Amino acid sequence: MPNKNDVIRLSRYRNALVRLRALNFVKVFCDNLADATGVSAAQVRKDFSTFDISQNSRGGYDVKELLKRLNKILNKDTTHEFIEVGAGNLGKALLRYPGFARSGIKIVACFDVDPDKYDRQAEIPVLPIEELDDFVREHQIRFGIISTPDVAAQQVLVRMISAGIKGVLNFASIYLRGPEDCVINNINLESEIENIVYFVNLAEKSK
Amino acid sequence: MPNKNDVIRLSRYRNALVRLRALNFVKVFCDNLADATGVSAAQVRKDFSTFDISQNSRGGYDVKELLKRLNKILNKDTTHEFIEVGAGNLGKALLRYPGFARSGIKIVACFDVDPDKYDRQAEIPVLPIEELDDFVREHQIRFGIISTPDVAAQQVLVRMISAGIKGVLNFASIYLRGPEDCVINNINLESEIENIVYFVNLAEKSK
Repeated sequence: MPNKNDVIRLSRYRNALVRLRALNFVKVFCDNLADATGVSAAQVRKDFSTFDISQNSRGGYDVKELLKRLNKILNKDTTHEFIEVGAGNLGKALLRYPGFARSGIKIVACFDVDPDKYDRQAEIPVLPIEELDDFVREHQIRFGIISTPDVAAQQVLVRMISAGIKGVLNFASIYLRGPEDCVINNINLESEIENIVYFVNLAEKSK
Repeated sequence: MPNKNDVIRLSRYRNALVRLRALNFVKVFCDNLADATGVSAAQVRKDFSTFDISQNSRGGYDVKELLKRLNKILNKDTTHEFIEVGAGNLGKALLRYPGFARSGIKIVACFDVDPDKYDRQAEIPVLPIEELDDFVREHQIRFGIISTPDVAAQQVLVRMISAGIKGVLNFASIYLRGPEDCVINNINLESEIENIVYFVNLAEKSK
């Protein structure tokens, strides 16, 4: 079964293909995708074998066909509806993030505890957190984004899961875990930055 | 040599310790940290051995001592100055992100190509991109954040590196690579979301 990193590489190949198509590429080879995404050609071949993607009989891949195939594997053919909890700075920026629409992601509502943030008329309405459960059930939403302060994150996760959410992208810097049938991706910006600082300092010490 | 995931786990232990200290914990065991961060106790022990962190003679770890040690390894004792390029929605949200200050990260200036965004009087000034090189050299900045549209990201990276930046956190959805002596962390929000969608769909299909 593929793991998280396998799927992330697949996303990268897809993004590279979109750009290559814009450059009028008709055919690509594993080496092209390797160059464009920073992995080895052997890795590309291995991934394509994992996901059962086969070459043309004459070698190489047809760009449009391959893109269609990757879109299908990555479920890009359908739009996926998300809710978001937390309408602070980061939450508001995510509501406007153009990459989501490009990815077939649609945030349909945001929830918050702060009445000053409520806005039912907005294109993406900001609603009281108390309405989350009904909204998720009624619209059969399966995906959520947590962009609350750390202290609220665990409680929000519990609420999301009990309403029926199955996949969560968490931006709070607390590491969240859920039940087995729930997928949680934790994005910890502080850790990412600590990482960069660590490795830059390490490189400078070893000079 | 530790890899990226090792350092990310170390960050997680540190974040858990900060919370345990707030709960008046004086002593912790590997099992406590494992529970709080979702890894196995064996992994915690292995990580502590990698980073040369040893137990008390009576078993367990003193919370304050361990925190001091992790802070030192993760370079949290000093403030690290960052510049950011791209003052759009995401860029502006990052300028206000409270987690950075908490992590000893200080964004000292932001750069953009759009004169409408310039703001020299702001607490974190937004300056013309042409001033980046001089600013970075003058203030000896080593770290940068890219929050530009995808098409600009590669060019911004080249500019940062030539000015002397050694570590970059990239939020554009194009995968960036730099020279060997430069550390780049690519955060691709679209990929993260694609990942969640993929695994939730996979789980539902296999039901």
